[in-house]
Amino acid sequence: MGQATIQQVAEAAGVSPSTVSNLLNGRAERMLPETRERVSAAITRLGYRPNRAARQLRTGRTRTIGLIVPSVGNPFWGAFARELEASALAHGFNVLLCNSERNPERERDYVEELWDDGIRGMVLCTSLPSLDHLAPIVERGLELVTFDRPAQADDPGSVVSISIDNVMGAHLATQHLLDLGHTDLTFVSGSLGSVNRAARFRGFCAALEAAGIQIPDTPGWSGHDDVPFGDVEAAEVGRRAAHEIFDRPDHPTGVVAINDMTALGVCRGLRDLGLTVGVDVSVVGFDDIILADLYDPPLTTVRQPIAQMARLAVEEILSHGTRAQTEPGRSVLLRPELVVRESSGPPAQRRAADS
Amino acid sequence: MGQATIQQVAEAAGVSPSTVSNLLNGRAERMLPETRERVSAAITRLGYRPNRAARQLRTGRTRTIGLIVPSVGNPFWGAFARELEASALAHGFNVLLCNSERNPERERDYVEELWDDGIRGMVLCTSLPSLDHLAPIVERGLELVTFDRPAQADDPGSVVSISIDNVMGAHLATQHLLDLGHTDLTFVSGSLGSVNRAARFRGFCAALEAAGIQIPDTPGWSGHDDVPFGDVEAAEVGRRAAHEIFDRPDHPTGVVAINDMTALGVCRGLRDLGLTVGVDVSVVGFDDIILADLYDPPLTTVRQPIAQMARLAVEEILSHGTRAQTEPGRSVLLRPELVVRESSGPPAQRRAADS
Repeated sequence: MGQATIQQVAEAAGVSPSTVSNLLNGRAERMLPETRERVSAAITRLGYRPNRAARQLRTGRTRTIGLIVPSVGNPFWGAFARELEASALAHGFNVLLCNSERNPERERDYVEELWDDGIRGMVLCTSLPSLDHLAPIVERGLELVTFDRPAQADDPGSVVSISIDNVMGAHLATQHLLDLGHTDLTFVSGSLGSVNRAARFRGFCAALEAAGIQIPDTPGWSGHDDVPFGDVEAAEVGRRAAHEIFDRPDHPTGVVAINDMTALGVCRGLRDLGLTVGVDVSVVGFDDIILADLYDPPLTTVRQPIAQMARLAVEEILSHGTRAQTEPGRSVLLRPELVVRESSGPPAQRRAADS
Repeated sequence: MGQATIQQVAEAAGVSPSTVSNLLNGRAERMLPETRERVSAAITRLGYRPNRAARQLRTGRTRTIGLIVPSVGNPFWGAFARELEASALAHGFNVLLCNSERNPERERDYVEELWDDGIRGMVLCTSLPSLDHLAPIVERGLELVTFDRPAQADDPGSVVSISIDNVMGAHLATQHLLDLGHTDLTFVSGSLGSVNRAARFRGFCAALEAAGIQIPDTPGWSGHDDVPFGDVEAAEVGRRAAHEIFDRPDHPTGVVAINDMTALGVCRGLRDLGLTVGVDVSVVGFDDIILADLYDPPLTTVRQPIAQMARLAVEEILSHGTRAQTEPGRSVLLRPELVVRESSGPPAQRRAADS
């Protein structure tokens, strides 16, 4: 069966197509009740569904929110996508998911395509330092929410950012290891070339400085050129880092990792070397993905409140129309929470001294 | 800056709007080269972008593929979504991602909405036994590819299914444990009410039968009513199952789990009870998600070739137009592969006898 047209509905009901259209668009005040009923019956009988593309041409908007993540291959982004969809659905919106692999060109192409599809609200999770490549579309009215990327001075005016305080989060993670008695710490990450990653590294350094611990020339391991961010290969980044860092007797005793997947890779690399996580080396992650609690030993980490963040992102996008066009963008900064599990403990020498 | 219209382009180039339209739609054979150049220059200068909604009204199709998964909260579906997007992008298509939570109503609502948005190809990963709720839209021309759900006798005609052989996969997993010397095995899953899950359970039972092992009255643990499928809570299902099954001395020595997330939950539950995975109890998962290899101990599992499956799904959808309308649907069944890691070993008594 082909799809019924508005003409067929009109014919079946013995009215003009514009009468059908009026009913569908809530302009039926002056319509006779019996006409209204006849048209409704014809719509039902013929299974007519008003064409969304036509409606979109009129309104210029779809009920879809675009979501651009680095890679849904990282379970953190899968979990966030699910939360965003739940929040969007509650308002009758769908979510179109795109993976940018943190490539600015691919990101711009996606944003332009979604814009051409009538999508006027997007959540961008890629944290690249500059939004210049998106400025023209933001000026044309795109409601852009950046996730996990606090606003930068030269961002386009109306951009809203939703993020945890990444400096504070990494500070909490590092302080936790310092409090346990560790003094030789390292930071493991892929490229630090994103706003949130740079912030986490700053938090790590700030905690060391405040504790009066000399920051070494190379305070961390931040990947190789062939694995620039490692959203997919995050675990592999961590595992390779562990092999390089811990394959000598005077290795550090604590690791702060850029995210949980990298932390789990570090744990796997330590296992390869015969070292015990939480005993020989303490590891702290970032995100609190579901796997963090599942791992053996369960991973100490910094929790991001993704359900709350997803809800806020959707509300920002849906309230766009009600905000003054000239209202400047803003940053919503949420507080991270340290979740202590078993991958972190006192350093080995401290442990020996205590017993 | 407002978006340029086709009229403005025509005016700037000194031609009629239909000339611009002809150029854009590849009907420029009879156009003078200089006219062609003038129109192209005007398009570039004014930044004109043909309206997708208008184009979609003409063609009735978007360059978007719908993907409906149970929940992208399970890393397996995140990984599959990423592979599908990569395959779609290679053909200039995007992917719209929806989580059905395996709810048939929500699934139908999604399919109808996507259809109304002009999406004519969808990949459905929810494996519900019946597709009756989608039959009307398939009859209207939807190209539906089901993933991990072999075709059923009463499926609508044109549905194509892409799946691994789940019976074979579970048979391989079970046979592996039998070969190691295990004789007391259990199967752990949420609800078995989907085609692929039922198939995996059949494979488990078939392997036991072939080995002459009596299948007990309750050969498996298949969830509680409050966690019907547990796509999100898969790990929690496994953990709870482990607590119930292994909290007595005469527990089974081997577990075949419905998927890796459930298997990792079982491992976590065994840890809670002080049992060592791969020594006291062997655990085999299904899927080979990235976490399987990361876990400690690394998880023995059955691999699904998701990159290949995603590529096939996209090719099926894109070839829809070239297939005869009357061509019946078909099933593509791929061979699973057992990946042996360290979560499985000989049973404890066998181990003792060997030493």
